[in-house]
Amino acid sequence: MDISNELAIGIDVGGTNTKYGIVNHRGEILQKGELKTEDYPEINSFINALYETLNPLITSLKRSNFHGIGIGAPNGNYYTGTIDYAPNLKWEGIVPIAKLVSDKFGLPAALTNDANAAAVGEMMYGAAKGMKDFIMITLGTGVGSGIVANGQLILGHDGFAGELGHTIIVPGGRLHKGTGMYGSLEAYTSASGVVKTALELLQEHPDEKSLLRNYPEKEINSKMICECAMQGDAIAKKTYEFTGKILGEAFANFVMFSSPEAIILFGGVTRAGDLIMKPTKEHMEKNLLPIFQNKVKLIFSELKESDAAILGASALVWEMKPESINASL
Amino acid sequence: MDISNELAIGIDVGGTNTKYGIVNHRGEILQKGELKTEDYPEINSFINALYETLNPLITSLKRSNFHGIGIGAPNGNYYTGTIDYAPNLKWEGIVPIAKLVSDKFGLPAALTNDANAAAVGEMMYGAAKGMKDFIMITLGTGVGSGIVANGQLILGHDGFAGELGHTIIVPGGRLHKGTGMYGSLEAYTSASGVVKTALELLQEHPDEKSLLRNYPEKEINSKMICECAMQGDAIAKKTYEFTGKILGEAFANFVMFSSPEAIILFGGVTRAGDLIMKPTKEHMEKNLLPIFQNKVKLIFSELKESDAAILGASALVWEMKPESINASL
Repeated sequence: MDISNELAIGIDVGGTNTKYGIVNHRGEILQKGELKTEDYPEINSFINALYETLNPLITSLKRSNFHGIGIGAPNGNYYTGTIDYAPNLKWEGIVPIAKLVSDKFGLPAALTNDANAAAVGEMMYGAAKGMKDFIMITLGTGVGSGIVANGQLILGHDGFAGELGHTIIVPGGRLHKGTGMYGSLEAYTSASGVVKTALELLQEHPDEKSLLRNYPEKEINSKMICECAMQGDAIAKKTYEFTGKILGEAFANFVMFSSPEAIILFGGVTRAGDLIMKPTKEHMEKNLLPIFQNKVKLIFSELKESDAAILGASALVWEMKPESINASL
Repeated sequence: MDISNELAIGIDVGGTNTKYGIVNHRGEILQKGELKTEDYPEINSFINALYETLNPLITSLKRSNFHGIGIGAPNGNYYTGTIDYAPNLKWEGIVPIAKLVSDKFGLPAALTNDANAAAVGEMMYGAAKGMKDFIMITLGTGVGSGIVANGQLILGHDGFAGELGHTIIVPGGRLHKGTGMYGSLEAYTSASGVVKTALELLQEHPDEKSLLRNYPEKEINSKMICECAMQGDAIAKKTYEFTGKILGEAFANFVMFSSPEAIILFGGVTRAGDLIMKPTKEHMEKNLLPIFQNKVKLIFSELKESDAAILGASALVWEMKPESINASL
């Protein structure tokens, strides 16, 4: 069979938006688009909406060219094809999304978590090309991670490895409302964690002027904080220094675990650039044993934010093994 | 060639003692013994002493039967064959031990860190038999770790992965004198960490009776604390509760990294049995996301303490690939 026409669908399910793309073997995204995940609190209505959007595209590009569907989703499990208790999604309990998608579309489907998918995308097409040991950290609505060691994704015995956003960095620290845990990385370094830090700093320094005081507290978001920091606002800059400190401390522990060649940063929070990278690097190095110092590259993703996860999810399709396909075909 | 006569030497270099064994393909230790590592502050005198001890055994069992020498040592690097800046050893800087051993003995030699060697021993002959994802934690003079994922040791890009004893569990916490770091796992859960906790508790509760007060402070060691705890001494029991709390908090983070089927505990500190296991399990579970709870087995090593590292080091010999052999043969 000529593979040059073969196509895969990559779907990236996020807490807010779901992005999809039709991808060929060269990693080119031929078509892409998105849905609002939040608009579908019921999984079957979500699957139906996906189908209504994608089926016309599949038909127009010839159904027989489609090899399968790869899905990246929070708490997505490669082994079982289910999303299990994802705190950032409205679908509760265990959601057999790979089977639902496969049944609806009549195509094989494979699932992994969104951050693992992004890591695979980065390894195949981005900043981690050629690397065998790296960690991908996504700083967005949540904090996700995909860990590659010896050239393979670390999935763990149950498929749930790589939940670095939920590791405790500050024991007894800030409450994470979604999980009830105190002091997790996500509580500090997700987009809402950054907002919380800024609000705390505004409150702790009531006499310090800040551009952020021009906005009602409830409207402050991480993009705004980034823009204020770029304009030199002291509170906004301190927000990133603190976020980078926590991130750097966490990274030091991760490095001493798997000694990666690089940690690749990805997601909305990274748009602060050096404002977050510098303190992250400083505090990572400070907390490393000498044998690990000045070795680990800290780099930003080279893929467009929306593309990495779609590409990574689609790459699952090319690697599908019979036992991993949740299809009733 | 008939492999039934083939022999390997396994050497476990520890901060205090160095243990060696002659092992056959079935994992039987035919001969074993030890040297005091501390007696040889100079690496060449150590190599000479090893040779004088082992060479008569090699000759008596027929030199041509010997396939090679596997070495486990703190900060031992599989890729380079060097021990790099091991804080618990007197040999400073970078020590090319695999080459020194290979040159002296005229046999190929391979190196990894002592905890990785123990993990391989446990996977081949012990509690982790058949497991593809587990973490081995050694609680002794230091706190070491060997991490296996997808059935392979995680070595990292530079061969130094798995330094979990140096991860920071209590930011700004207890000083680790060897590394200058504050709040590392090793500062609390090594044998000397346990002693430090007991001494702190004795000082914080001056009016509380304790069997430990019968000994001069400088003579208290972890074995003594264990014996007092077994006899119901409250301070000694509290010492293990606190140690288990720190250990459990650390384990929760490790589980969210690699989602192992089991964490296997090994080394002198584990002789406290349930006194340390119960609080460790309790605090691990408390700090895990629900998807990880009640899944990870916490178990003690099934190998005799001295045997696991020797067996694991010897197993390196059977897996030797040409590029990993630091031999000038």
